[in-house]
Amino acid sequence: MPVSLKDIEAARARIRDKVQLTPMDRSRSISKKLGTEVFLKLENQQVTGSFKIRGSLNKMMSLSPAELSKGVVAASAGNHAQGVAYAATLLGVQSTVVMPETSPLVKVMATQGYGAKVILHGQFYDEAYAHAKTLEKENGQAFIHPYDDPMIMAGQGTLGLEILEQLSDLDSIVVSIGGGGMMSGIAVALKALKPNIKIYGAVSSAAPGMCEWFKGSQLSEPSGVRTIADGISVKIPNRSIFETYIKPNVEDIVAVDDEAIAGSIVYFLERAKTVVEGSCAVVLAAAEQAKWDLGKKTCLLLSGGNIDMNLVSKVIERGLTERGRLARIGVRVLDRPGTLMKLTDMISHSGANILDVRHDRVRPGVRLSETVIEFLVETKDPQQIEDLRCSFATMGELLS
Amino acid sequence: MPVSLKDIEAARARIRDKVQLTPMDRSRSISKKLGTEVFLKLENQQVTGSFKIRGSLNKMMSLSPAELSKGVVAASAGNHAQGVAYAATLLGVQSTVVMPETSPLVKVMATQGYGAKVILHGQFYDEAYAHAKTLEKENGQAFIHPYDDPMIMAGQGTLGLEILEQLSDLDSIVVSIGGGGMMSGIAVALKALKPNIKIYGAVSSAAPGMCEWFKGSQLSEPSGVRTIADGISVKIPNRSIFETYIKPNVEDIVAVDDEAIAGSIVYFLERAKTVVEGSCAVVLAAAEQAKWDLGKKTCLLLSGGNIDMNLVSKVIERGLTERGRLARIGVRVLDRPGTLMKLTDMISHSGANILDVRHDRVRPGVRLSETVIEFLVETKDPQQIEDLRCSFATMGELLS
Repeated sequence: MPVSLKDIEAARARIRDKVQLTPMDRSRSISKKLGTEVFLKLENQQVTGSFKIRGSLNKMMSLSPAELSKGVVAASAGNHAQGVAYAATLLGVQSTVVMPETSPLVKVMATQGYGAKVILHGQFYDEAYAHAKTLEKENGQAFIHPYDDPMIMAGQGTLGLEILEQLSDLDSIVVSIGGGGMMSGIAVALKALKPNIKIYGAVSSAAPGMCEWFKGSQLSEPSGVRTIADGISVKIPNRSIFETYIKPNVEDIVAVDDEAIAGSIVYFLERAKTVVEGSCAVVLAAAEQAKWDLGKKTCLLLSGGNIDMNLVSKVIERGLTERGRLARIGVRVLDRPGTLMKLTDMISHSGANILDVRHDRVRPGVRLSETVIEFLVETKDPQQIEDLRCSFATMGELLS
Repeated sequence: MPVSLKDIEAARARIRDKVQLTPMDRSRSISKKLGTEVFLKLENQQVTGSFKIRGSLNKMMSLSPAELSKGVVAASAGNHAQGVAYAATLLGVQSTVVMPETSPLVKVMATQGYGAKVILHGQFYDEAYAHAKTLEKENGQAFIHPYDDPMIMAGQGTLGLEILEQLSDLDSIVVSIGGGGMMSGIAVALKALKPNIKIYGAVSSAAPGMCEWFKGSQLSEPSGVRTIADGISVKIPNRSIFETYIKPNVEDIVAVDDEAIAGSIVYFLERAKTVVEGSCAVVLAAAEQAKWDLGKKTCLLLSGGNIDMNLVSKVIERGLTERGRLARIGVRVLDRPGTLMKLTDMISHSGANILDVRHDRVRPGVRLSETVIEFLVETKDPQQIEDLRCSFATMGELLS
């Protein structure tokens, strides 16, 4: 039986007093960027930092005390781990979460912090998943799937009800798609209550399955590429979720690459002053890239904000580089007094700002009489970088 | 004539349709941290990213067309520059902003982007200020002071009215103090409408003047130390603002250092998922440090979010280091095969995660047979760092 509005309303009644009603704020800068009135549903401010507790709570609260008595088990490297741990502890249920050994320390600690027993197993999600399924069989623990479960979908769908209550005259919404559980629940809720609303989907180009099906293509071979949108990196999605919920309800799906996602994360930080993770930033990257008809009022669903702070640093560097606001420029020059002065003089004249400088005298291909000097500079735009590169080229060979 | 509630209400009527009504959101994580219900007034989402346009707009709208005809002039390295530029352009007035030559490129660009003519002058704010005052005299442009002006204070005070409308049963509020204009306006509004509200102030320990006066001390010699709370780094505040508005209305003032401010910026990013600048993050750092009686409901005023993205990277590193989540550990060892392997093995066993590794063979004091190996590691807590340092010490001399 597919998920219905009734299931979602029942989920809402069940979990309502256990989740935050997250804010819906108008964003002036993004409205300007997208040329329509844009509201941000700040589900990144949900308890545990993402929407995931909605589904976990609904699922667990629909199980019997007998089923819950042996505890629950799940596999996840990210938000679902925290959602399951938090929901279980809140309900007084034991939880075991299998996480890949490669999971960031901060996510492991957060999951433990919410009360789960964490088992590190395998290099990738698939192995963690298989181990969790083994535990389900061996110990009789209830398995909490991250998306492929009607109760999970109904829980995530409560977001759709909330969004319409907060903004009833919405013309469109942009939602990210990983396994498709959240999109499915939200689409069912929105289409039932407001059939003419336009629903758009965003995926990462490193896991473009749902987008490929939507365009009528075959699934491409999983690339093995890691993406900063790790939360929606589902290599082989479930075809029946696509056919039942996504295809009939969604207007269009667009895939965006990591460069665009990094740029969007930085944009959210710099302009909307809000922290989003990669699997959430895809919605802005997709809306920019696709130029969809969003009507007069649209909502970007900010599904989560659990981004590793160390990753934020890297993403800022990448995002600024992408926009010509930061550049590494290296040049191979004669290693003699005055050279560095001439180069810094060029930078100073260009109006750029030096953030770091490094000498490398042992790089392969560098003669004994030479050195490589590499600058990290803060710049105004790509043109300024190009000008600087031209000046530097008069001093020696530029590093590519 | 000191600023009155009436002035602030007049300011509200004047600027109301030109500023955003910024959100007031409950923060679960900060409520837990401070042990009371905490709401964040997200003025970091104001147009131009800070509260400054409120004062600028009110000031300019109270000038006559004749006074405005020659344009306005201001000096600022930060938010006031953007506030003046935006307000002037909105009202069709020419603006000139003198900024120190050391201002971050991104702030210069933003100010120009809002339509101001930017003049770079002097190394520090004082010189820029003096030049702006010269322009006022020479060209007859109206000078827009960043805080020492009743109309500016009244404009910033509109925040007080808004806050009470959004949260009428507030017991206390924490506000940062630089020149004191914002605190003065807000205090007048709040005390007039809700006399029993407790108002707390936060300053940077690099510019602690208001705090020193409050404690009854003499002003210490300005230290010349730069602070990441640059927006409130007013070395010598105005005594009459202190006597008239701050002293009679404020419960307590606390000064916090850059380490605590960096920690708070990271906390806001990681837990509240919101971006604040240093001069705003002081409110959390101060509330944590002071353990004030905040009552049942408190508001942290997040006055601005204009933090340079490059600085965010640095602050994340410092904030994580402060909390034992990141460490640099270097050791001077014999430069022979296998040494790096042994060290990485120790790190791997400790459960820490290597982010970067560097060799340095030419550091002073390092013999020809030796090398310094320095790791940047992601860690769980200070104990894990200490354990690692102990293991490393068995291999060679630790770098301090």
